[in-house]
Amino acid sequence: MEKLKIVTIGGGSSYTPELVEGFIKRYHELPVTELWLVDIEEGKEKLEIVGNLAKRMVEAAGIPMKVFLSLDRKEALKDADFVTTQLRVGQLQARILDERIPLSHGIIGQETNGAGGMFKAFRTIPVILDIVEDMKKLCPEAWLINFTNPAGMVTEAVLRYGSFHKVVGLCNVPVGMKKTMAKQLEVSDEEVDMKIVGLNHHFFMTDVFVNGKSRMKDVLEKYEHMNEEDQTEMKNIMVIPWSKELIRGLQAIPCPYLSYYFFTKEQLEHQMELFQKNNVRAEFVKGVEDELFSLYQEESLHEKPKQLEQRGGAFYSDAACNLISSIYNNKGDIQYVNTVNKGALTNFPVDTVVEIASKITKDGPVPLSAGEIPVALQGTITTIKTFERMVCEAAVTGNKDLAIAALTLNPLVPSDKIAVEVFRDLLEAHKAYLPQFKEEMNS
Amino acid sequence: MEKLKIVTIGGGSSYTPELVEGFIKRYHELPVTELWLVDIEEGKEKLEIVGNLAKRMVEAAGIPMKVFLSLDRKEALKDADFVTTQLRVGQLQARILDERIPLSHGIIGQETNGAGGMFKAFRTIPVILDIVEDMKKLCPEAWLINFTNPAGMVTEAVLRYGSFHKVVGLCNVPVGMKKTMAKQLEVSDEEVDMKIVGLNHHFFMTDVFVNGKSRMKDVLEKYEHMNEEDQTEMKNIMVIPWSKELIRGLQAIPCPYLSYYFFTKEQLEHQMELFQKNNVRAEFVKGVEDELFSLYQEESLHEKPKQLEQRGGAFYSDAACNLISSIYNNKGDIQYVNTVNKGALTNFPVDTVVEIASKITKDGPVPLSAGEIPVALQGTITTIKTFERMVCEAAVTGNKDLAIAALTLNPLVPSDKIAVEVFRDLLEAHKAYLPQFKEEMNS
Amino acid sequence: MEKLKIVTIGGGSSYTPELVEGFIKRYHELPVTELWLVDIEEGKEKLEIVGNLAKRMVEAAGIPMKVFLSLDRKEALKDADFVTTQLRVGQLQARILDERIPLSHGIIGQETNGAGGMFKAFRTIPVILDIVEDMKKLCPEAWLINFTNPAGMVTEAVLRYGSFHKVVGLCNVPVGMKKTMAKQLEVSDEEVDMKIVGLNHHFFMTDVFVNGKSRMKDVLEKYEHMNEEDQTEMKNIMVIPWSKELIRGLQAIPCPYLSYYFFTKEQLEHQMELFQKNNVRAEFVKGVEDELFSLYQEESLHEKPKQLEQRGGAFYSDAACNLISSIYNNKGDIQYVNTVNKGALTNFPVDTVVEIASKITKDGPVPLSAGEIPVALQGTITTIKTFERMVCEAAVTGNKDLAIAALTLNPLVPSDKIAVEVFRDLLEAHKAYLPQFKEEMNS
Amino acid sequence: MEKLKIVTIGGGSSYTPELVEGFIKRYHELPVTELWLVDIEEGKEKLEIVGNLAKRMVEAAGIPMKVFLSLDRKEALKDADFVTTQLRVGQLQARILDERIPLSHGIIGQETNGAGGMFKAFRTIPVILDIVEDMKKLCPEAWLINFTNPAGMVTEAVLRYGSFHKVVGLCNVPVGMKKTMAKQLEVSDEEVDMKIVGLNHHFFMTDVFVNGKSRMKDVLEKYEHMNEEDQTEMKNIMVIPWSKELIRGLQAIPCPYLSYYFFTKEQLEHQMELFQKNNVRAEFVKGVEDELFSLYQEESLHEKPKQLEQRGGAFYSDAACNLISSIYNNKGDIQYVNTVNKGALTNFPVDTVVEIASKITKDGPVPLSAGEIPVALQGTITTIKTFERMVCEAAVTGNKDLAIAALTLNPLVPSDKIAVEVFRDLLEAHKAYLPQFKEEMNS
Repeated sequence: MEKLKIVTIGGGSSYTPELVEGFIKRYHELPVTELWLVDIEEGKEKLEIVGNLAKRMVEAAGIPMKVFLSLDRKEALKDADFVTTQLRVGQLQARILDERIPLSHGIIGQETNGAGGMFKAFRTIPVILDIVEDMKKLCPEAWLINFTNPAGMVTEAVLRYGSFHKVVGLCNVPVGMKKTMAKQLEVSDEEVDMKIVGLNHHFFMTDVFVNGKSRMKDVLEKYEHMNEEDQTEMKNIMVIPWSKELIRGLQAIPCPYLSYYFFTKEQLEHQMELFQKNNVRAEFVKGVEDELFSLYQEESLHEKPKQLEQRGGAFYSDAACNLISSIYNNKGDIQYVNTVNKGALTNFPVDTVVEIASKITKDGPVPLSAGEIPVALQGTITTIKTFERMVCEAAVTGNKDLAIAALTLNPLVPSDKIAVEVFRDLLEAHKAYLPQFKEEMNS
Repeated sequence: MEKLKIVTIGGGSSYTPELVEGFIKRYHELPVTELWLVDIEEGKEKLEIVGNLAKRMVEAAGIPMKVFLSLDRKEALKDADFVTTQLRVGQLQARILDERIPLSHGIIGQETNGAGGMFKAFRTIPVILDIVEDMKKLCPEAWLINFTNPAGMVTEAVLRYGSFHKVVGLCNVPVGMKKTMAKQLEVSDEEVDMKIVGLNHHFFMTDVFVNGKSRMKDVLEKYEHMNEEDQTEMKNIMVIPWSKELIRGLQAIPCPYLSYYFFTKEQLEHQMELFQKNNVRAEFVKGVEDELFSLYQEESLHEKPKQLEQRGGAFYSDAACNLISSIYNNKGDIQYVNTVNKGALTNFPVDTVVEIASKITKDGPVPLSAGEIPVALQGTITTIKTFERMVCEAAVTGNKDLAIAALTLNPLVPSDKIAVEVFRDLLEAHKAYLPQFKEEMNS
Repeated sequence: MEKLKIVTIGGGSSYTPELVEGFIKRYHELPVTELWLVDIEEGKEKLEIVGNLAKRMVEAAGIPMKVFLSLDRKEALKDADFVTTQLRVGQLQARILDERIPLSHGIIGQETNGAGGMFKAFRTIPVILDIVEDMKKLCPEAWLINFTNPAGMVTEAVLRYGSFHKVVGLCNVPVGMKKTMAKQLEVSDEEVDMKIVGLNHHFFMTDVFVNGKSRMKDVLEKYEHMNEEDQTEMKNIMVIPWSKELIRGLQAIPCPYLSYYFFTKEQLEHQMELFQKNNVRAEFVKGVEDELFSLYQEESLHEKPKQLEQRGGAFYSDAACNLISSIYNNKGDIQYVNTVNKGALTNFPVDTVVEIASKITKDGPVPLSAGEIPVALQGTITTIKTFERMVCEAAVTGNKDLAIAALTLNPLVPSDKIAVEVFRDLLEAHKAYLPQFKEEMNS
Repeated sequence: MEKLKIVTIGGGSSYTPELVEGFIKRYHELPVTELWLVDIEEGKEKLEIVGNLAKRMVEAAGIPMKVFLSLDRKEALKDADFVTTQLRVGQLQARILDERIPLSHGIIGQETNGAGGMFKAFRTIPVILDIVEDMKKLCPEAWLINFTNPAGMVTEAVLRYGSFHKVVGLCNVPVGMKKTMAKQLEVSDEEVDMKIVGLNHHFFMTDVFVNGKSRMKDVLEKYEHMNEEDQTEMKNIMVIPWSKELIRGLQAIPCPYLSYYFFTKEQLEHQMELFQKNNVRAEFVKGVEDELFSLYQEESLHEKPKQLEQRGGAFYSDAACNLISSIYNNKGDIQYVNTVNKGALTNFPVDTVVEIASKITKDGPVPLSAGEIPVALQGTITTIKTFERMVCEAAVTGNKDLAIAALTLNPLVPSDKIAVEVFRDLLEAHKAYLPQFKEEMNS
């Protein structure tokens, strides 16, 4: 039996059981011989809890996949075939600050958008670039499957500053949207393909196909009479239905995260309520996670518990297993990934990362030509790409001016003055994880 | 003496004396034989007041330029060499609504930006396209010099929907910025050239030259220690100084109008105060104009009164005369105009209108190659271009969905819901001027 | 059983038996209910011979596919699902002139390249555009599968001047090259995928994959030691081995037709010999065809005769059946087709036709992003695209100047003077088929 | 008086008197204080002859410009303000080989095109890159004004491989064409502006303006009835009139050098005649030069002799002086130079060198937006750019495969086989000047 070694950085994550389930389910086509779950010292306890559950799951499945737990990243990476990353620098505590500090200045606090997303990027990108440096030495042929958020920026940073091309950024939002479309059109998931245009957490569906035939017209019509629940499957975003005029005007369906941009006022009001109740999303998730980990400890448990699906990141790990299998088997199927545009969106820079339908081959994802970004969508997509590019550069260089300018330009930040203030507070709060910003602010 | 006929549509405007002064000053190089001031029936009284002043000014100057007043646009346009437009559909009363109605929904109310700018475009574009149709028949060789706001969108609409290429859009903001730079660098205006990147009322200065040598470094340094008054010469925008971080982060100086985007919160608060005092900008301007017109009536006045310079549009008409003279004389000098990009900004659509340094020739403006729009500026410029394109299309087709989507996407509008509401109220308020939106809203 | 109607224009072609065999072989997945073979009055006899063979083949196969023979194109097209074109305006006699007349002026005479290719395009494009007009009325949902040469130009013309988007141009050269690669790499055809860059009859293979892994390095090495026969499977082009330096310098394998451009001198010398022996390719093919048709008449024949494979267009019809089946079944497999670039080649016009690896869906081909055309290949590919664009325009407008300029710019034509002369002679020879060039030459 | 130091590398050239005359004529606006004429040991005698004439000319003019003769390039470059290059590696003897060796293989032999142009580039580019390295250290603020051929490739190489941006490539062909146009339109040179599209020695005039008004229509009409002499002012190219069809088909006037591409057959026949008479262009020029140098030695001569105008490079040095004065004085006038495209040709790479109308400022040339390269011109211009890019890379890396592939792709080379042979012969002939190609050919 040929070696097939998979290394999961951030192996102590509550998502791991889904990942393990994914590998078990696909063992017939993806015969993983070694699964290494790696974490850092601070995560040791969680790693053991989740690692032991993983071992019980594999044993119950009766497959010869070995599960290793390790705090030694270098040892783990040696000769890996695939590396997945699901780490969280600063853990949920840091996410709580990413959400609460912006809210304390009266602006949206969110894990992957605006000021919160910027600081998650600042903490995460240097760590991922370190992993990439290790990979270049220890497993240069391996693929890096990143589903650490903000996944688009992390992928952009790896390509632009890590000079490493075997990376794919993954997100469950397109998968969720595909399921929503299947439900609306009353077909099975497998029959649906989408044309998506944009970036991670900031894309629009501009066409949808059932067995290859466009059904966009039907979808647009359905949105005329749709109630809230049917518009999305996301757990973590308050749903406010798009106006009929907006959908008709765009001739496209925005991904759920766009609610922060098109209902900024309402989302902010909702977040402020949660803020005052000390129950912002991160605080809520922390409760869920605590519960999950006590579940995971039960020796009798040897499968992924149902409760995990309520966690918010459903399908994430499944998407990762799917992608790995398609690369491994040169399947040539279509998946929605973060990869270099390369002309697929003809009026967007060729060398930048987009989230796009791609054919998955042994050589990685090959994006399908998607034509022009329609006029109506150019502005908001370019604005977020500008933000991503500036944040990536600041994450690597520690340029505070660039970071503040990026915030001022961000549509969720209504004032240069607030940008300066919220940046200072977040920097102070997270400074332990941000060595790149070591110098005094010079004004 | 060869005929040189200039036609000014909206001739009854309070700006006309500056225009007339401009022609008088340049008579040695631009020997205008006929100046036709044209207006509509409703503007007849103003036209007579301002037209008589114009005649007195010409007489006092002792030049053989004939001034004609006319309510018959077609008669006036016959065989014109240059046509300038400075009309205001619905007059200042309409502008008051453009400002007050958005404010009544808690969003910025401004003549050329956001919801107010959209409706000014909706009222103006069809009228300008009518004028263009007349020009094609009556003076197909004439140049249309548009300084009716929103000048960028009007120019875009003429090119895209009017299929008329002899049009230049003009604005006084770059001229004002050039004067500010000259003052900061302690040189004369003539020695200064700028590289500007962006759109009408939405551009950045990315370089500045004194006698051809870049002095951008000095300018960036000066901004470190600058007080409010020195940042701009604009009369109509409350100045809030940019943060030092923003300027360093952008490595560019935003044009004053960007204050609405980078200090949205503060500008809105300021406008709300004026709103409550019934003294929004349009209301204030109306007072100034009433005063100007009583001045204009004095028979003893035969020059442009000083007070006009306080009006807010200083240099507008002078810029127009300058442009006309440069085209007429094939001067080849550099002016900042709204014209088709044609690759000058290499990473921006080739066929869209930008505000850019151009060499002015008998064949019109030829933009100077300006290279790539820097990453940091791509987002906001593209966002406004998306808005402009959508507004132009809606202005011509009467597509309400497109209009509402454009508002939702606009950074000054914080919610799709508000977009729907403010659109309905403005449409109702202006419906007399908006025949293109005749159909019922379909939701 | 659902209707599935296929219409083949030029049904009397000697290729038809291969096409029929293709449909029989795929009946399980592509249950054709009606196959209409259409031809014109002049082709009636051939249509009957070949049509009767088709009927015998279907009967022998025992499938319920009905074969219709018709001279009434409109009747045939009614409600078609797929239309294939394999017509030859002026028949082989015209091709003989396309080859001999250029040779009589001392330049390459070839069916799809240079002066000969230009006149084949001139005769063919108007006929195809007529068919497209019929299709718009009679079967607007049908796909046009064109394998009439010059296939690239015909596809370009349909898209640009026919305003019809459901068209795919097909060629057997990439299929042949794929087979050659499989042989060289000692794997089966199915395991091979190629990256091709360029145009119909003018492309380069820049990468090759076996089960998704790049093997280009091995291929380039093999070319260091390769003899002539192994370089191609083409029957109609004299093989001259590329110099080792050329292959190393290009880092790409030229398609066989490029021999006319990279060995112009030698190919011309070879053609001149055949010219003097009255045995140019078209004359040779005419002999083969006569033989095939006498074979086809034998009542005992009820399968495709082996001799057809010697004809030169092997795999052509098979490729067409493959394509039709993939569209019909939304297969999503990769095929090499002529379709709109849409950014797949990032440094080539987005709106022009290229020959490229595409995913075949029910909505037609979606090209895979292929990145930049390498510097070395940009010139020759752009030169042929210029030729194609000029020829298409001249074919539609009858602009003789454009046609002559296109010839002068063509690398196979060494002089403007010869361009003028060869154009006049070919126009005179083919004038019966070229109504678009009716006006006198004006010099 | 402020220092203004100009250094001319290749100061012993026969062109120098024209350059000196140019500086004398412009002394009032360009007060050169030091003119350094630099040459290498082998050119010492010529340098003295021409240098003494220069001194006599300056003295006769009575201006305080000091002329220095030097064999020490580094000493000369110290603190230079402008550096001009007019060197010829291997002198005229090398050019004779560049012309005769290709002809001996039956292909065009020309100084700046095809195989000859390639080898001139191979000899010249490394020397120019050396000069650039010196400049970076000794006079980093100086401008390099290159008029050493092939001027386009040299400029491309300096930008791409020398990482030096203060370089302008200069050629007299556009100047000559402008004079021809002035004569045809019966106006003075100063009134004429052109729009040119393409590369050094490979451009087309697509528009021409008299005092800013397009007169292209008149020019196209004149070409209908034009005899040979009126088509060009070039001394070194046999004029064959373009066919009326070609001019009408292109809607553009090719520059004279395009005769090698559009009359390859006829130009080759003409060159073969001269080859057999041992009187190819280089041989003829050598005779002229010998004569010029004996003239230059006459002590009584203190001005540029008339005979120099017969030399073939007329206006070259004058163009250089003009350019230097416009940079020095920030004139802002339009000149035709080789500089980075930067979007001026919208459908051509932004980062490559083109020959284009540019506004000349203290910051160097700023190209004027010229729009799309018309379809008809895209192929031939891209082909030559491909050649230039490959030659530059081979000149720097010594990659022989790339060089041979570039030749095979060149329209003047009719066969890969000839490409291999002519490359070997030229390499052998010039090996003393080609250290970069030191390794054995590996086949």
